[in-house]
Amino acid sequence: MIKIALIGHGVVGSGVAQLLEEKRESLEQKAGDRLYCAKILDLRDFPHTPYADRFTKDFDEIVSDPTIQIVVEAMGGLHPAYEFVKACLEKGKSVVTSNKELVAEKGAKLLRLAKEKNVNFFFEASVGGGIPIIRPMHLCLAANQIDKIYGILNGTTNFILTKMIKEQMTFQDALLLAQKLGYAEKDPSADVDGVDACRKICILASLAFGKQIYPQEVHTEGISQITLEDVEYAKNAGCALKLIGQAKRLSGEKCSVLVSPAFVPIDNQLSSIDDVFNGVLLKGDATGEVLFYGKGAGKLPTASAVVADIVHIAKSPHTSLSLTWENSDADLVADISKYENAFYYRLRGAISPKKAQKLWGPLTILSRKNQPEDEIAFITGRMPESNAAAIEKEMGEEAEILGKIRILA
Amino acid sequence: MIKIALIGHGVVGSGVAQLLEEKRESLEQKAGDRLYCAKILDLRDFPHTPYADRFTKDFDEIVSDPTIQIVVEAMGGLHPAYEFVKACLEKGKSVVTSNKELVAEKGAKLLRLAKEKNVNFFFEASVGGGIPIIRPMHLCLAANQIDKIYGILNGTTNFILTKMIKEQMTFQDALLLAQKLGYAEKDPSADVDGVDACRKICILASLAFGKQIYPQEVHTEGISQITLEDVEYAKNAGCALKLIGQAKRLSGEKCSVLVSPAFVPIDNQLSSIDDVFNGVLLKGDATGEVLFYGKGAGKLPTASAVVADIVHIAKSPHTSLSLTWENSDADLVADISKYENAFYYRLRGAISPKKAQKLWGPLTILSRKNQPEDEIAFITGRMPESNAAAIEKEMGEEAEILGKIRILA
Repeated sequence: MIKIALIGHGVVGSGVAQLLEEKRESLEQKAGDRLYCAKILDLRDFPHTPYADRFTKDFDEIVSDPTIQIVVEAMGGLHPAYEFVKACLEKGKSVVTSNKELVAEKGAKLLRLAKEKNVNFFFEASVGGGIPIIRPMHLCLAANQIDKIYGILNGTTNFILTKMIKEQMTFQDALLLAQKLGYAEKDPSADVDGVDACRKICILASLAFGKQIYPQEVHTEGISQITLEDVEYAKNAGCALKLIGQAKRLSGEKCSVLVSPAFVPIDNQLSSIDDVFNGVLLKGDATGEVLFYGKGAGKLPTASAVVADIVHIAKSPHTSLSLTWENSDADLVADISKYENAFYYRLRGAISPKKAQKLWGPLTILSRKNQPEDEIAFITGRMPESNAAAIEKEMGEEAEILGKIRILA
Repeated sequence: MIKIALIGHGVVGSGVAQLLEEKRESLEQKAGDRLYCAKILDLRDFPHTPYADRFTKDFDEIVSDPTIQIVVEAMGGLHPAYEFVKACLEKGKSVVTSNKELVAEKGAKLLRLAKEKNVNFFFEASVGGGIPIIRPMHLCLAANQIDKIYGILNGTTNFILTKMIKEQMTFQDALLLAQKLGYAEKDPSADVDGVDACRKICILASLAFGKQIYPQEVHTEGISQITLEDVEYAKNAGCALKLIGQAKRLSGEKCSVLVSPAFVPIDNQLSSIDDVFNGVLLKGDATGEVLFYGKGAGKLPTASAVVADIVHIAKSPHTSLSLTWENSDADLVADISKYENAFYYRLRGAISPKKAQKLWGPLTILSRKNQPEDEIAFITGRMPESNAAAIEKEMGEEAEILGKIRILA
């Protein structure tokens, strides 16, 4: 029997407890041993669960119990999750987490500690909910150098954008609906400002490039400034508007990492990923492009990814299979001014297409229904971000920038 | 150092040798040990490779060498591949193969033997080329009961159908082009008749249901009867025409497994998978639908999947991590007459929409440009295959069936 403890009995934690209980037999067959949830740490009581007797409010009952081999951290947040996980690894317990903030901020430290102690620190559930991404990247694509990884990493913002695209809802109305349906939190900022997507692209980039990429190094834009006019121009350009996290290997040691809304051309598989679904595209030097797609959140999808990590650990006890990446002190992430992109602009003012082309070079001019006379929208050629900024400066007061969005390439 | 032998230096085998050579350092880091290709069995000579000195024509030099731990079978075909793999497993060597015929026909036997000998038999490359599918299904979705698995499993037929859909090429012209580009073999029957897709769905179904499903149990239809008229009616119905392998868990112990062309509605992610790309959709009871997409064939994608298997074995020596399924004597696959489907029919003859509705029940009538007066095309409601057959019989000589294709649901 392999004894497991859960830290946190919220959405994910309760899902893990439920799956361990309901799928006991098939999990035993797959893991080669009985998986038993022995302790659950939560400050609340849950008297009506089938495992009501196993709750504790004292972390020490878990960390000091030598019979507990695997600890699931599903409390979220950085503290005290970090201290709890660290203490468990130090005691030689493997840890599984769904906490993206923890992995994005402390991944390198915890992975090194796990390796030292010959245990595992797994986090499949931290990106893409129930979609297998971390393990396929690590195990299945071992013969590839990953040159590029990008995707739709946040279901809430994708739901909002889908409603804006398909039903012409405004951002505010779509956000209210997402909150009503339980897809968005009361304070939606972590989702709509791109913070959640940023943590996830940091985890994927760290894994792809072998060095920790920290969220604070990543230029991050959310979707709250997106208007229905932008959506309409995107359609006119043959694109869908999505919030994209992306990381690319640049020449030299540097990489680019970015979270921002983007025009996604319809021939890109990501353009048709709607609602709360997520999709991640990897480009390996041997395999080419590979896409993973599915529900990026939700109780059981996420819990099933946690349980898969548990099964993997149970199948190979006493083996440290952890992926690793190193701590990075160097400035691995290149400055955003150096990234190359094509841009969509929407301008208001006395600026003709001819004048715009003089400033930006060859453009694709876009149009929409009921377009005001003093509005112009276009897509530029590819240029460094710094060039785009310089041109904006040169344009000065002649026109007001109502919208500026990158084109995914 | 971990010594590896290759059986077969064809497309996949030479790709494996190339990756082991070119990516030596990064693989050593990932595997935790040097991966060294010590012997290559092939009847031909390859004097101009960097490892020309390691070729042999004698299988015994591999099977009897106790220092060789991992054998890669990349020769294809059932014999002598089966005998070679069996002999290697019996000697306690782990085996990695890309040979779908071998796995589809002999998987259960070889998996049991590997388990007995505490070694591994891996075959990630046998389905979907470089796309990680087998391992994610096995490891990442361990907490799921897989209820349904279906997809585009053959790149050659998908290339042909894409040319028919996007460029109105006839089947014959598209096949010739595929042969010219090296996507189709001189004798294209294994691809166009669905044999290759059948082997792959058998492997996926065996893994999903835990019992060996044999190709000869699976109703298999190819694409050689598909016409441009069918393609046009599919468009009119809001669908793309694809060759689909599918396996579903039915009530009781039975399952349905089928390979056939299908109308794929455009809101299904598979509908936009074009050219030589493959896509596999899984439905797990916890995770919901998950899609894997990428290049389903090609030298380096397939070889990179083989190398990933090698790395996985190298990381956990002395551990049998193999997935397993049992041999099945029982009739696990239900008779096709019991499967339920909606059907597209194209008929020629004196049959009115009203008469057709009388026979088939409520229909969606389809149309195309230049539709002859004596042609009718429609989509039926869902019904057992046996009902459809009975109605065809009832219709008798009134009309000739020019096309009949299932609708993917």
